[in-house]
Amino acid sequence: MKTTPEVNAARLLKSVADFAAIGATPAGGVNRQALSVEDRAARRLLVERALARGFTVFQDEVANLFIRREGRDAALAPLLIGSHLDSQPTGGRFDGALGTLTAFEALEALADAGIETDRAIEVVAFTNEEGSRFSPGCMGSMAFAGVANVTDWHSVAATDGARFSDELAATLNDLPEAEISPIGHTISAFVELHIEQGPILEREGVPIGIVTAVQGTKWLEVAFSGEAAHAGTTPLEFRKDPMAAAAAAIVRIQGDIMPSDPDARLTVGRIAAEPGSINVIPGRVSFTVDIRHPDATILAAIERRVRDECQAAGERLGCKTVIEQRVDMPPGRFSPHVAQAIEDGCAAQGIACRPMISGAFHDALFVNRIAPSAMIFVPCRNGVSHNEAEFVTDDHIMIGARALLGAVVKLSCE
Amino acid sequence: MKTTPEVNAARLLKSVADFAAIGATPAGGVNRQALSVEDRAARRLLVERALARGFTVFQDEVANLFIRREGRDAALAPLLIGSHLDSQPTGGRFDGALGTLTAFEALEALADAGIETDRAIEVVAFTNEEGSRFSPGCMGSMAFAGVANVTDWHSVAATDGARFSDELAATLNDLPEAEISPIGHTISAFVELHIEQGPILEREGVPIGIVTAVQGTKWLEVAFSGEAAHAGTTPLEFRKDPMAAAAAAIVRIQGDIMPSDPDARLTVGRIAAEPGSINVIPGRVSFTVDIRHPDATILAAIERRVRDECQAAGERLGCKTVIEQRVDMPPGRFSPHVAQAIEDGCAAQGIACRPMISGAFHDALFVNRIAPSAMIFVPCRNGVSHNEAEFVTDDHIMIGARALLGAVVKLSCE
Repeated sequence: MKTTPEVNAARLLKSVADFAAIGATPAGGVNRQALSVEDRAARRLLVERALARGFTVFQDEVANLFIRREGRDAALAPLLIGSHLDSQPTGGRFDGALGTLTAFEALEALADAGIETDRAIEVVAFTNEEGSRFSPGCMGSMAFAGVANVTDWHSVAATDGARFSDELAATLNDLPEAEISPIGHTISAFVELHIEQGPILEREGVPIGIVTAVQGTKWLEVAFSGEAAHAGTTPLEFRKDPMAAAAAAIVRIQGDIMPSDPDARLTVGRIAAEPGSINVIPGRVSFTVDIRHPDATILAAIERRVRDECQAAGERLGCKTVIEQRVDMPPGRFSPHVAQAIEDGCAAQGIACRPMISGAFHDALFVNRIAPSAMIFVPCRNGVSHNEAEFVTDDHIMIGARALLGAVVKLSCE
Repeated sequence: MKTTPEVNAARLLKSVADFAAIGATPAGGVNRQALSVEDRAARRLLVERALARGFTVFQDEVANLFIRREGRDAALAPLLIGSHLDSQPTGGRFDGALGTLTAFEALEALADAGIETDRAIEVVAFTNEEGSRFSPGCMGSMAFAGVANVTDWHSVAATDGARFSDELAATLNDLPEAEISPIGHTISAFVELHIEQGPILEREGVPIGIVTAVQGTKWLEVAFSGEAAHAGTTPLEFRKDPMAAAAAAIVRIQGDIMPSDPDARLTVGRIAAEPGSINVIPGRVSFTVDIRHPDATILAAIERRVRDECQAAGERLGCKTVIEQRVDMPPGRFSPHVAQAIEDGCAAQGIACRPMISGAFHDALFVNRIAPSAMIFVPCRNGVSHNEAEFVTDDHIMIGARALLGAVVKLSCE
């Protein structure tokens, strides 16, 4: 390499601001849901900037968008970097966009410095990571990794009633400059920069997390069925109250599992009572349990514990207990080699970093199935994400971009 | 009196079946909501039968429907008996209708026997007791008792979008035979027969409950506000989880209050988490508490206990606690004199009975404010009501009708 590539701070920060304007909400966040007109506008802006820099662009059949800068040796598989551009309906400016735009900045920095890498580098914006408009999330990376087929989702309806296949076709057609390539081409490795979506880096004052693993996740839906009855006329001994069972079960599972294991996460995010009248003892109460742990064995043990506590609470209160599993995603381990490249890049630039476990899903989790992958986390204020208040300081944006560029230089020339 | 009046079993059971056919649901229940076309059809059938027997009919401005059989002395205030004809959307055949139809049977039995009572007797079908199509319930009896004005509700919208004032006018106009009298005329006393809506009579094998009091009711809405955060990335020490606070509070208030006082009722019928995503620690969890007790002092003490436990749970879990009171209805005591008349009537006929406290609201609770009132309860299967499975045996219908007739004979000739 001739010179050291440098992140252009003004350009990168302007780029973050420009994309934040697409789908901007009054409260400072972004509503740029997958395959919406806002999502298409963001894709268009990225393509225009790519073509202006002489990079090539292409899409695949799930509308994953690629920006490619050629390397010296066309026989080498490209290095993939990037993230996603779609957001939650009341999402932030950084979740996804920051990873895509710092990746594009890395391409520009290399071009600015006139550096020819050994292998080509491709920036990707994966389709529908968030899963809020169309379920499930991570469609783009799942299809790219061969975990699922785009045809599986053709009939999926959006929260706004649109059909996935229609919105996908419209999005693809909206970028005639980007020809459509077969899905799932070979890559050498994948690096995704993302906001942490948690409080640890900020609290510890460390600007970079190197994500070595992703927690396994299990989603359960617990339902207690008792007997709906009149609140005023039904004495205690006649009650089969699923609300009592639910409250007891939640207290038991929350009281013990997280306090005794700092890596465990257990969340009851949704609860409903039927018929849901103020003056009727519910006939049915259901709630969700989100369990996460980086160790598959411990994760399975926590699930058993949750099931046992719920069964016991149901029996104590005279209710029938039904527990269904909605998601079972095993823990993922990222590539130590890619993680090392990120760490080396940080070390060379004097950037402090620490290894981390991701508690959230990311596209990298799926890409990791077909190519060595790892992630770079940057701090976000108060750990807040999926929220218009999501915020990353300019300093942390810059440090993140430099960490990514450092890893890119290493991984594209090996 | 010349002879003893007798309930006509075949006529009464056919009458119950005929009215159950109006708004009948496939599951054997009734959907005959207030002021609906089904409600109007039931009113019409009652009016036709009344006119056929030579009784007079009239309505008041809230469409309470009255059937009057004259007495010997027009200067005496009439005795009022009856209940309501409207039902829940998936209601039963007996809640309300049984009280109205046994009252009408009492009039027919007196006419059959050629008995002239001292005072006139009026059968009433109060408007909108259930409160399911138009809120609040007990509109007819509240307006009759002067607790509220019909004009208060003119703009109330039905669950089906209709306006109260329109449906009221249509209902009144549907019965041109029944002229409209000023609301709230003087009565000597009121007796309402109703299904128990609870399990006590059935369990004890006693066919008649004489209701001497109605529990006081307080409705609270408790809301815990914490901090919405990512389920996977937020360690326990960063959580301000309102679900944990809600579960803890519910366990505390349910664990102690009812077990230590057999007259207390405490129900959490509704609960919701916001944003309500499986993978988001809720930012807010709210639930309702329905508290009932026949003693006003103890009821107030239970409310304080509930408030204290919720505040404490909120503080423990780092959440803000807001508690609002939605309903505060003091306990009601029925007339000992009317209750005694019911008891005497039962005793004279060898009908077993016991005093009871009603856990539910009834029209009689409001009428009791302007005239001595009491209620007769009959057993319903498994205590089930507000449900298509609501059921009363023919035997219990007959015993109830005889108990009511006995009370009517006493109260109309004193």
